[in-house]
Amino acid sequence: MPPAFHVIARDPVSRARAGVVTTAHGSVATPVFMPVGTRGTVKSLTPSELSDHGAQIILGNTYHLYLQPGHELLARRGGLHRFMGWDGPILTDSGGFQVFSLIYGGIADELKGRRPQHAERMPDMVRVTEDAVIFKSYLDGSRHVFTPERSIQVQHGIGADIMVCFDELPPFRAGYDYTAQSMERTHRWAARCLAAHHERDPATLPNPHQLLFGIVHGGVFPELRQTSAEVISTMGFDGLCIGGSLGADKPQMYAVVEMTVPHLPDGLARHLLGVGDVDDLLEGVARGIDMFDCVSPTRLGRHGTALVRDPARRWKLNVSNAALREDDRPLQPDCPCYACRHFSRAYIHYLYRAKELLGIRLVSLHNVAFLLNLMAEVRNAIVEGRFAACYAEWLGKPLEVYSPSDKES
Amino acid sequence: MPPAFHVIARDPVSRARAGVVTTAHGSVATPVFMPVGTRGTVKSLTPSELSDHGAQIILGNTYHLYLQPGHELLARRGGLHRFMGWDGPILTDSGGFQVFSLIYGGIADELKGRRPQHAERMPDMVRVTEDAVIFKSYLDGSRHVFTPERSIQVQHGIGADIMVCFDELPPFRAGYDYTAQSMERTHRWAARCLAAHHERDPATLPNPHQLLFGIVHGGVFPELRQTSAEVISTMGFDGLCIGGSLGADKPQMYAVVEMTVPHLPDGLARHLLGVGDVDDLLEGVARGIDMFDCVSPTRLGRHGTALVRDPARRWKLNVSNAALREDDRPLQPDCPCYACRHFSRAYIHYLYRAKELLGIRLVSLHNVAFLLNLMAEVRNAIVEGRFAACYAEWLGKPLEVYSPSDKES
Repeated sequence: MPPAFHVIARDPVSRARAGVVTTAHGSVATPVFMPVGTRGTVKSLTPSELSDHGAQIILGNTYHLYLQPGHELLARRGGLHRFMGWDGPILTDSGGFQVFSLIYGGIADELKGRRPQHAERMPDMVRVTEDAVIFKSYLDGSRHVFTPERSIQVQHGIGADIMVCFDELPPFRAGYDYTAQSMERTHRWAARCLAAHHERDPATLPNPHQLLFGIVHGGVFPELRQTSAEVISTMGFDGLCIGGSLGADKPQMYAVVEMTVPHLPDGLARHLLGVGDVDDLLEGVARGIDMFDCVSPTRLGRHGTALVRDPARRWKLNVSNAALREDDRPLQPDCPCYACRHFSRAYIHYLYRAKELLGIRLVSLHNVAFLLNLMAEVRNAIVEGRFAACYAEWLGKPLEVYSPSDKES
Repeated sequence: MPPAFHVIARDPVSRARAGVVTTAHGSVATPVFMPVGTRGTVKSLTPSELSDHGAQIILGNTYHLYLQPGHELLARRGGLHRFMGWDGPILTDSGGFQVFSLIYGGIADELKGRRPQHAERMPDMVRVTEDAVIFKSYLDGSRHVFTPERSIQVQHGIGADIMVCFDELPPFRAGYDYTAQSMERTHRWAARCLAAHHERDPATLPNPHQLLFGIVHGGVFPELRQTSAEVISTMGFDGLCIGGSLGADKPQMYAVVEMTVPHLPDGLARHLLGVGDVDDLLEGVARGIDMFDCVSPTRLGRHGTALVRDPARRWKLNVSNAALREDDRPLQPDCPCYACRHFSRAYIHYLYRAKELLGIRLVSLHNVAFLLNLMAEVRNAIVEGRFAACYAEWLGKPLEVYSPSDKES
């Protein structure tokens, strides 16, 4: 196998870079946004629609696929690619995020510090030990044990091109000491994941050429992020994720990325887990992130919010708004997606008001295409040396200069 | 405008015929099945998917489109074609079926005599006079008046290529006298619809070249069907529908068609309203029907039933059935639809079990394509003089011979 990642262009004033990730199901041009197919389907869309609109790689959730339809069934059916009819690269997360969300209720809120204290909605649902996480299925209450080895075994059955290590997710308000202890455990689990991966028998797996990404923790603490970056970077992973708590708000998330990236090697791709707002994508790229995933485009689509090129609206248009009732324009003028080429805001407004499924489809498709086109535009700007202008055009403010001194390290 | 319909081939032993309906948005090869887009969308599917899979014409519901988004809005937006992005022919029903379903609850059951007596779920919802039907909106309880003139005015605003006369729908158990009186009223309403259509100002309408189809009533009574066929046929309509009560079961429905068609002129297209089961399509074609519509393919799709080429199963496969859990075959082997070319029964079974929207999409698309392909096959068989073999292959029994003596009348 060639190296999993190489850089092809760098922005002169920020840490933004363009590169290529090489996988068993094709290469991925970075920076890249990957639509999320939580349960083996990017909600309401077909694989053809995704590829026709520029999707290069999608993400599947190990936890959900483990519970239903199960990794053993997926392996028997030839792996997730064949099962869902997607021939391009797939990344699976480790399952940790979803398992821990059983403790915290909404883990995204918890990780971002938006909950006042540890929510304990489902205190019986999960227990954590040094060895394993024991949890109950949300489908039938059955008891399950996830260990680092088990997560890798499940991901082997799913057969994604990129797997991610199983990690413990401490709550945002855990404090320095707990975050440090949790990080150490995640490092031990990372070694166990690597060992489990090396012990596999490729001949028995649907995808013999899987990559394994490590995951950097350390919460909002610069010295922990540096430690974790240095430890995980030298363990032999094929790429790196920035995970764990990313702070209470967007500035703190950007600060976490800033304190982490300088300690990551140049030669490994960097994935910022679960992030997909327009500003977060541009700020992440400026700080050296190569890969992003988020459920937001399809979730917004189901809730009737379309992404538009308008920072004053936070890039969001409520399609149920009465102002759209007789608006003949597409959701986003000049958008090349199928929805914008064929349908007016008036029609999509009507579909939502009438609760017609096609409304969800069209807005979900537009939103996915919108983020894919944004990232293609960002990548071209980096390659052509005008990322700062692209950033300013999208966000309506100048790009702050980040020291690129470490980028050739 | 050329004649709205001409016959290009006839089956030698039955009344089956192949023809062409000519409309302002293109021609339609008959016999044809038209998918139903009740509210300006064939549920969960795009216009591109419909045309890619062979749909020639779709049906919209006047009653639903009148209530939401409204025919005036549709006219301002350029008509239903432009609003929903479908450039092919459209037929709108008159609204009568839905208005009267407010009396009967489920009118399909009532028309087929499956209800023990007149259900009166919504006794306040509708009132019928010689002049009009007064009903309340299911959306907000507002009061509305439909007259024959109003139905045509609404259909002018929608702009479908084929409109249908507004009719009264008597319940199945109305008996001979009420059915005869109701038929006479429907004939008077037919004259009013024609007059209203002739008084239009085409320059003000989104589609200046609309056709108007009459509707033949008479319940299950041969002499009433003959009378209605003869009266409606000579009023100057561009085509004819067979409406009203079609009996209590399939044999009675076939009998109604048999007692009606011989009294219809050869030169007008014949539409059997609301019928779409596989056997009903073949039996209808054998008895001289040219056009069919039904919500069944998308309704079955939402409920997880796929159409398959298997008379022993009544052409239905429950995709939630556990037997499909690891079945790698497509829904229907050899089906050329997108769902069958790309996905296994196992995947679609999983999507339904996981309540993923893509499952509804894929089975709805398959079901629509299945009926479109069936009708294309039937038409080719008629053109090639082998309809009897086609009928026998699909239904597993020989085609009874219907006297074609009247067909050149």
